[in-house]
Amino acid sequence: MPITEPEGLSPTLQLAFDLLRRASVTPDDEGCQDLMIERLRALDFHIESLPFGDVKNVWAVRGHHGPVLAFAGHTDVVPSGPHTNWEFPPFTPCINDDGMLCGRGAADMKGSLAAMLTAVERFVDAHPDHDGRIAFLITSDEEGPAVDGTRAVVEHLRERNERLDYCIVGEPSSTARLGDAIKNGRRGSLGGILHVKGVQGHVAYPHLARNPIHQVMPALDALVNEHWDAGNDFFPATSFQVSNLRAGTGATNVIPGEVEVVFNFRYSTEVTHETLRRRTEALLDQHGLEYHIDWTLNGEPFLTAEGELVDAAIRGVEAVTGERPALSTSGGTSDGRFIATLGAQVVELGPLNDTIHKVDERVRASDLDALSRIYEATLQALLTSGEVNV
Amino acid sequence: MPITEPEGLSPTLQLAFDLLRRASVTPDDEGCQDLMIERLRALDFHIESLPFGDVKNVWAVRGHHGPVLAFAGHTDVVPSGPHTNWEFPPFTPCINDDGMLCGRGAADMKGSLAAMLTAVERFVDAHPDHDGRIAFLITSDEEGPAVDGTRAVVEHLRERNERLDYCIVGEPSSTARLGDAIKNGRRGSLGGILHVKGVQGHVAYPHLARNPIHQVMPALDALVNEHWDAGNDFFPATSFQVSNLRAGTGATNVIPGEVEVVFNFRYSTEVTHETLRRRTEALLDQHGLEYHIDWTLNGEPFLTAEGELVDAAIRGVEAVTGERPALSTSGGTSDGRFIATLGAQVVELGPLNDTIHKVDERVRASDLDALSRIYEATLQALLTSGEVNV
Repeated sequence: MPITEPEGLSPTLQLAFDLLRRASVTPDDEGCQDLMIERLRALDFHIESLPFGDVKNVWAVRGHHGPVLAFAGHTDVVPSGPHTNWEFPPFTPCINDDGMLCGRGAADMKGSLAAMLTAVERFVDAHPDHDGRIAFLITSDEEGPAVDGTRAVVEHLRERNERLDYCIVGEPSSTARLGDAIKNGRRGSLGGILHVKGVQGHVAYPHLARNPIHQVMPALDALVNEHWDAGNDFFPATSFQVSNLRAGTGATNVIPGEVEVVFNFRYSTEVTHETLRRRTEALLDQHGLEYHIDWTLNGEPFLTAEGELVDAAIRGVEAVTGERPALSTSGGTSDGRFIATLGAQVVELGPLNDTIHKVDERVRASDLDALSRIYEATLQALLTSGEVNV
Repeated sequence: MPITEPEGLSPTLQLAFDLLRRASVTPDDEGCQDLMIERLRALDFHIESLPFGDVKNVWAVRGHHGPVLAFAGHTDVVPSGPHTNWEFPPFTPCINDDGMLCGRGAADMKGSLAAMLTAVERFVDAHPDHDGRIAFLITSDEEGPAVDGTRAVVEHLRERNERLDYCIVGEPSSTARLGDAIKNGRRGSLGGILHVKGVQGHVAYPHLARNPIHQVMPALDALVNEHWDAGNDFFPATSFQVSNLRAGTGATNVIPGEVEVVFNFRYSTEVTHETLRRRTEALLDQHGLEYHIDWTLNGEPFLTAEGELVDAAIRGVEAVTGERPALSTSGGTSDGRFIATLGAQVVELGPLNDTIHKVDERVRASDLDALSRIYEATLQALLTSGEVNV
C-alpha cells in the first residue's frame, strides 16, 4: 500500500509532501515559497521577496558577516501532461511500495528544496552562531523562460554589491546512485539564426540566379568540421550543431532567394562567445556569403574547478554515502550559469535525474534524507571550524 | 486612344481579339476551341474532340495521305491576378497607342493560335490540293498539370499509330525581335525529393545523435559541383539545382532526425535520366547516407537538330523578316517534349516572350500578322512543290 499521508515520515519527507501537493506548474509558485519563508523566518532568516513580472522569487539570508553559502532552487515544475498517463496522480504525492516518493517535482527539484531546508534547520539548531552567512535564492521560473527568475535576482544582487561566495544548486545531478556526480560547471550555449541571401530565379535559368542553398553548403560544412577547441579537463570539445534549415518557395522549379539556418554552439571555457561569433563570421566571409546572423547568448559556461566548495561537497557526499563523487560538466543549462557570474563557486548537487520531465517522476525517499545530511555536512565543512560530523 | 473593337483589323487580329475576350484560365477553354473548330470545319478539316478529365482537346486533320504538318497550341492562360494591377483589363483586349495588343494570352499563346489559323486559311485558299496533311493539336491544359492535355492526346495518337512528321508549336520563342529565335529542342527535366535519415537527439549530447543536415551537406556540395556533361552544340551543360530544403523540429535545441531536399536536373541530350539517377545515387552512396529518393521525370529532352522542318521555318522567317533566326534550346519545358516522342520534327516558333505570365501581357499587333505570314511560308515550303512566296 502506497504511503499517502506524511505523518510519521522524516521532516524532509513531510516538507517534500507539502511542496509536491502544490501544483506549481511554471511559472506558478502556488504557495511553495510561503511555506519555506515561514520556516526560514523561524530560523531568523532575513526575508526579501523579489517578484519580477509574474515570477515569484525570494532571497533570504541568515547572519551578518563572513562568507555567504547560498542554496539555490526553484519551486516551479514542468507540466505533467494528462494525469491519466501517471501511475499515481502527479500532484498527490505518495511513497510507493518500492520506497519511491512519486509526484511531479519529486526529483526536479522539490525534494532538494525540502532537503536543503531541513539541513539548515538541523545545522542552525546545532550551530546557532555558525560562521559566515547562509542564504536561499528560490525562484518560480527555472523551467520557463528563466528571464524574471534567478537571472533577475542575480542582477539585483549585483547592483547591491551583495557578496556570494558559495552556491549549491539543488538540481538533480546524480545519475545511478545518490551523490555519484556533482556538476561543477556547465558548457556555454550560444545560438544563431543565419540568413543567407541569394538571387531567386527559375531552375531552367540558373545563370540568372544565385542559389543560396548551394552557397551555404560548403560554408556550413566548414563550420561543422572546424576545430573550435580541444576542450579541457572539465569540458568536452566545443560542438557546433545545425538544428533547423529552411529554404525554398515550395515550388520545385524556383531557385530560392534565401536560406535560414538555425545553429547552436555548446562551448567550453577554452573559448568565449565573442571568439565563436568572430570565427563564425570570418569563416562565412571566406565563403563570400551575403548574410546576417541573429545571435542569442543562452548562457556562458561556468566552471568551479577547485576550491572550498567543491572540497566540502565531495567530503559531504563521502561522509554520507561512503563514495567519492565524480565531477561533471555535462548536460544542459541550469540557473548555475547566472549565479556564477557573481564570482561565486557553484556546484549542482541533488538526487537522481533519471525520471525528470517524464511521467511518473520519482525519487528514492531515503535518498532525500541522505541528501539532507549531505547538505548539512557541507554546511558544517564551510561554516564551522569543526570537523564534518553527520 | 486604344483600339477596343476588332472591326477593320486584319483577320488574324480579329480572331486574336475573339480568343482573348474568353477568360480561359487553365484548364478552362471557355469556347476558344469551338471558335477554331468552326473555322477549321469550314476548311474541310476532320475534327475530333478528345477531352480527358476536365481538359478539352481537339485533333483536326485536313487531307488523307502524305506527311503531316501539325500546328500545336493551347487555349488556356495563366491566371491574371487582380485586374486592378493591369493597365487594361486582362480579358478585354485592346491595341494600345503603341500598337501593342494587350491582354492575358496575347503572347502565350492566343496570338499564335490566331496566326496559325489565318495562315492555314490563306494557304488552303491558295492551295486547296496541297501536298500531305495539315493538322491542329489544341489543348486547354498546357499551363496546368499538363497531364490530360497534349500528353494524353499524344498517347491516343500513338495507340492509333497516327503519323506526325512535323510540328510547329506556337510558344513565344522570340526574344528581342519577332523570329529572332526558333526553339529546336528543350532540355530534359528530372526532379527528385531526397530524404536523408539521421538520429534525432539533443544538441547538448551530439555524440548520441547523428545530424542528417551535417551528413547531407558535403553530399549536396558534391552534386552541385559534379560535372554531369559538357552539353553540346545545341544544349548547355546539364545543371543540378536544389529548390527546397527542410529540416528541424522548430526547437533550437533538437538535432533533427531527417532532412528533405527537393532538387531538379535540367539536362542535355548528352545524358539520360537513367544515367543521372544512377550517378546521383552512387554519389550519395559514397557519402554513406541513409536515404531514399522519389524521382519524377518531368520531360525527356528533345532535339530537332536539322531537317526539312527547321529548314522550312528558317526560310519562312527569313522571307518575312529578312533576318536569319537563331536556333535555341534554352528555357523551360513545353508540350513539344510530348510531341517529339512520336518521332516528329518539332520546333517552337512564336512571338516575343518578354511579358508572358506577367501583368500587362502584350504583343506587337503587327507581329501577329507577320507571324501568320511566317507560318504560311513554312506551310508552302513543306506542303507544296513550289517556291516560298509571301
